Amino acid sequence: MNSRPDTPLLDTIHYPADIRALDKSQLPQLCEELRQEVISAVSVTGGHLGAGLGVVELTVAIHYVFDTPSDKLVWDVGHQCYPHKVVTGRRDRIRTLRMGGGLSGFTKRTESEYDPFGAAHSSTSISAALGFAVASKLEGANRRAIAVIGDGAATAGMAFEAMNNAEAGGSRLIVILNDNDMSIAPPVGNLRNALARLVSSNKYLSPRKLAARLAGHLPKPMRNAAERFEEYARGMMTGGTLFEELGFYYVGPVDGHDIIGLVEILENVRDSDHGPMLIHAVTQKGKGYAPAESSADKYHGVVKFDVITGKQEKGPGGGPPAYTRVFADALVAEADKDDKIVAITAAMPGGTGLDVFGAAHPTKMFDVGIAEQHAVTFAAGLAAEGFRPFCAIYSTFLQRAYDQVVHDVAIQNLPVRFAMDRAGLVGADGATHAGSFDLAYLCTLPNFVVMAAADEVELTHMVHTMAKHDSGPIAVRYPRGNGRGLPLPAEPQLLEIGKGRVVREGKTVAILSLGTRLEEAEKAAEQLESMGLSTTVADLRFAKPLDEALIRKLLTTHEVAVTIEEAAVGGMGAHVLTMASDEGLIDGGLRLRTMRLPDAFQDQDNPTKQYDEAGLNAPHIVDTVLKALRRNSVGVENGARA
Amino acid sequence: MNSRPDTPLLDTIHYPADIRALDKSQLPQLCEELRQEVISAVSVTGGHLGAGLGVVELTVAIHYVFDTPSDKLVWDVGHQCYPHKVVTGRRDRIRTLRMGGGLSGFTKRTESEYDPFGAAHSSTSISAALGFAVASKLEGANRRAIAVIGDGAATAGMAFEAMNNAEAGGSRLIVILNDNDMSIAPPVGNLRNALARLVSSNKYLSPRKLAARLAGHLPKPMRNAAERFEEYARGMMTGGTLFEELGFYYVGPVDGHDIIGLVEILENVRDSDHGPMLIHAVTQKGKGYAPAESSADKYHGVVKFDVITGKQEKGPGGGPPAYTRVFADALVAEADKDDKIVAITAAMPGGTGLDVFGAAHPTKMFDVGIAEQHAVTFAAGLAAEGFRPFCAIYSTFLQRAYDQVVHDVAIQNLPVRFAMDRAGLVGADGATHAGSFDLAYLCTLPNFVVMAAADEVELTHMVHTMAKHDSGPIAVRYPRGNGRGLPLPAEPQLLEIGKGRVVREGKTVAILSLGTRLEEAEKAAEQLESMGLSTTVADLRFAKPLDEALIRKLLTTHEVAVTIEEAAVGGMGAHVLTMASDEGLIDGGLRLRTMRLPDAFQDQDNPTKQYDEAGLNAPHIVDTVLKALRRNSVGVENGARA
Repeated sequence: MNSRPDTPLLDTIHYPADIRALDKSQLPQLCEELRQEVISAVSVTGGHLGAGLGVVELTVAIHYVFDTPSDKLVWDVGHQCYPHKVVTGRRDRIRTLRMGGGLSGFTKRTESEYDPFGAAHSSTSISAALGFAVASKLEGANRRAIAVIGDGAATAGMAFEAMNNAEAGGSRLIVILNDNDMSIAPPVGNLRNALARLVSSNKYLSPRKLAARLAGHLPKPMRNAAERFEEYARGMMTGGTLFEELGFYYVGPVDGHDIIGLVEILENVRDSDHGPMLIHAVTQKGKGYAPAESSADKYHGVVKFDVITGKQEKGPGGGPPAYTRVFADALVAEADKDDKIVAITAAMPGGTGLDVFGAAHPTKMFDVGIAEQHAVTFAAGLAAEGFRPFCAIYSTFLQRAYDQVVHDVAIQNLPVRFAMDRAGLVGADGATHAGSFDLAYLCTLPNFVVMAAADEVELTHMVHTMAKHDSGPIAVRYPRGNGRGLPLPAEPQLLEIGKGRVVREGKTVAILSLGTRLEEAEKAAEQLESMGLSTTVADLRFAKPLDEALIRKLLTTHEVAVTIEEAAVGGMGAHVLTMASDEGLIDGGLRLRTMRLPDAFQDQDNPTKQYDEAGLNAPHIVDTVLKALRRNSVGVENGARA
Repeated sequence: MNSRPDTPLLDTIHYPADIRALDKSQLPQLCEELRQEVISAVSVTGGHLGAGLGVVELTVAIHYVFDTPSDKLVWDVGHQCYPHKVVTGRRDRIRTLRMGGGLSGFTKRTESEYDPFGAAHSSTSISAALGFAVASKLEGANRRAIAVIGDGAATAGMAFEAMNNAEAGGSRLIVILNDNDMSIAPPVGNLRNALARLVSSNKYLSPRKLAARLAGHLPKPMRNAAERFEEYARGMMTGGTLFEELGFYYVGPVDGHDIIGLVEILENVRDSDHGPMLIHAVTQKGKGYAPAESSADKYHGVVKFDVITGKQEKGPGGGPPAYTRVFADALVAEADKDDKIVAITAAMPGGTGLDVFGAAHPTKMFDVGIAEQHAVTFAAGLAAEGFRPFCAIYSTFLQRAYDQVVHDVAIQNLPVRFAMDRAGLVGADGATHAGSFDLAYLCTLPNFVVMAAADEVELTHMVHTMAKHDSGPIAVRYPRGNGRGLPLPAEPQLLEIGKGRVVREGKTVAILSLGTRLEEAEKAAEQLESMGLSTTVADLRFAKPLDEALIRKLLTTHEVAVTIEEAAVGGMGAHVLTMASDEGLIDGGLRLRTMRLPDAFQDQDNPTKQYDEAGLNAPHIVDTVLKALRRNSVGVENGARA
């Protein structure tokens, strides 16, 4: 307040109330300092940089104008919340972002009362904010709920559903459409085209013009021709007809980096009693940091970097290729030989490797935007016409298309191929991005074939097997991160559906592994062998259909059998138990155990620690076997089932 | 063709090619006969009447103008497809609709090549049609794909996602928006308001006007102010700006019952090379059948009725109340005492009983339209503010909100209450509507409490328990149909979370039941007892958390234990096996078996036959026990696991 211009204002800001105590004229300085603080913090922690830099002014303006945390601020996706965290009591921990025990990289209810609704998956904010607005209304209170949603996130059907219901929130609901610079990513869908048209043909709305419009109290909804003329005339001036049709009072476009203008417009909005308002703010990803401005895609998510040069740290060079890349290359190779192969991504061309596929087969790649539901049924339509569609969707995001997987794919037994990247634990992104449930939610479905790749060689075989599997739906799961470094085969193998493989022969203990825990299973077998326990290790390859012959043989010829998978309860282990029970294989005193993820959401951490916490490393396997044999444990720390 | 006006034209129509051989002037007569045939058939079979009557002219016009089945016709939801079935080779079986072994009440790929994509859940048609259109484009063919979607179905986010991607289909994609008479159901959401405005302020588009517009070749997308002016001017005339913004060429409104006009407009559309077109057809549900026109809600789905009087057959009078009604009454009673209880439905107020709740607590009931995703996150927002939201969504439709259940509810541990009606098998609606997977997809989630009601008394206890459970998400499943006829308690009980109950004490056999199979379990126990097998029957009540103490006791004190549930593999039985395996309870030679739905999609049939097919009746339980004891079976017919 009385700080001199050269004294850091940010040091006086602990909570939003401190921002509200500032004079409006001090806000530009605060924004500048906040921007530098975010750059500095992310240079140390890595994380999402561009998105946060794009909303520095929005963050300050919202907290300045609205009475947070009584008014509810909901950030869509939440990866743009770093500046918000800095000014809401978390600056002292901002350099622990995305680390074990540190701040989440997203908004999180358990972290702060200023995070009234957590996020990480996109497009949920308007629904949640409408819940807050209606709660306020039912209580006769006047709390506002502000959702900040990006133009990409607004393409998801869920956002449309919420906008279509916005009227229930009345003037308590405010949606800020954070329209990033269009040049960053290729626009997907016509909503983005429409937004681009609005921005290119309209000057920014001034606070004075908005105030005049609000004072005019234009009647809504329009009911006759005269009113419709008026509405369309306004549409022509301001361009928001699509949003007006959905029941919003459209305000925009607004310069999202003009802090003084933003504050004045938000004050007008706050003080108006119009129905739900949609403020169309135009911002630039990476704003104010030259390397991020000029190469926004590279600065969307970053590793540690040098603030001066903008140079990002290299990961451990020369490591094995990532599973994502192995998948992409394998799919390109299949498509080179088969012109019926097409690939579909829901706004994740880079993350799924389909950018590589698209470069090789541009007419065969479809990025449908953040629209997993549509992606799956679109793929089902292509499959119905004899095409071989690969839907490459992260395991956690496929949850959003579950009904389409059931109703359009499984019931119709259509050969849609699902490539589920990021299956299992995912490290720094934490619980919201973990792909824990795919085995449970897919293996329960009739007609489905469900595979998990034990390593990158297996993944190439599985991509080939999927390409050839025309008789029904088929899915493969594989983890985030790099492969084992195995040499890739010149020609991939066609796997027999529902057949596993024995990778090590033994007599007493059988470890039935699915997916990349195989390496730990092999380590555990070594240890068990050194204790005199002859150990078989099998890679089941298929969670559905199970290799019943192999499982029957292993369960009837070993004393102890342990299943292991990187998935929540209800997955492969539960299905092995069910089969063993159906056949009476467990009646004879077999000691059968299942190892799986714990029944809890695991916070972000480095992967090794996450596996330890989950109890899915070699020592835990050994321990499980010994316990089953009633022998003394070798002593596992942090074992979930110790 | 040369038939006299008094000869039934319909008798000459076996396939759409026969329609195309008619003179345009004969089409009104065909429509009239087709309408009477549908009324006659449904009066015998029951089913969806109003929807089919509303699209008689659309059905005839589409098959007349387009080259089905080469051109692909996708009916959204599919419940309006009865006239379509009559003219596509299925007239001889139309009186087997919805019966075991008969025609499905929806479109179905395995039934006819004229059903290129099956449906039953709403809002999938545009995505599927886009798949067909893109397939045609990739092959260099010129096949069209026509999606017919209702105004209600268009409110779902999935339809928006598809429309936002429509441009990929180019002129091969045609969407017909079947806008039913607005007076039938209260409009939900602003999309419907916008449509109503369009219809009320525009005259129907004539074929001549359309032809003139198409000849004008208006450029799209507009890129400068002059073009935008032109676009908005057109919007003012024709009203379709929302669809234009999404990239469609909007045509409408069109009178959906003027067969000659429809045919001419569709011919214009077919012969145009504009991008994707959206034809806005206004129709009336129940058109042409006076009882259905005047009371469209009562004739949406009907039982057998008298064609002359329109009187519908009564069901067996004086039976026990339906579970839906028991749920609704119980929830009203809770809300009478607790002003934090609110209820949310996704366009199913009648089906879920929330119409009853809404009548009692109008400000607390929210119908969000066909928008399950939004419904769940909206509820989560309300829960975050201390409200007690009940989301009443059929088990099968909750699949559409799975990601929201995981990401917004379970991860944040918010106390949203889920009332999952129609869990398990559902009779005439068949596989698409069965609620088979809820236990598998919910029990795998941390933080969730999952209950199943064994009867209507239990349901009242469970609704009360849900109302009081503020510590996290909780769900109850209950079946379609009527209760057992038990007297309802004056005061419901508060159940202890994770505690089951023993309903019959025995020594040798333990039956662990979840849900309404309890009645069969008790019958089986009687039979087993008569064979000298002392039998315990337990109602677990909770699929999650399991009553571990009770299960431990039962498994360690009985020779045989059998679980039974009306759910797919991966549900309660799998979780009991997992717990038993974790604790080593199966090591001692216990014979533990799980009974569940078969791993196949079951077609429509009467419920008794469906349970027989599933192998979930008392004789199957007895048989499973005897087999586990290696005794001779008593001989079960059709037993899935016999």
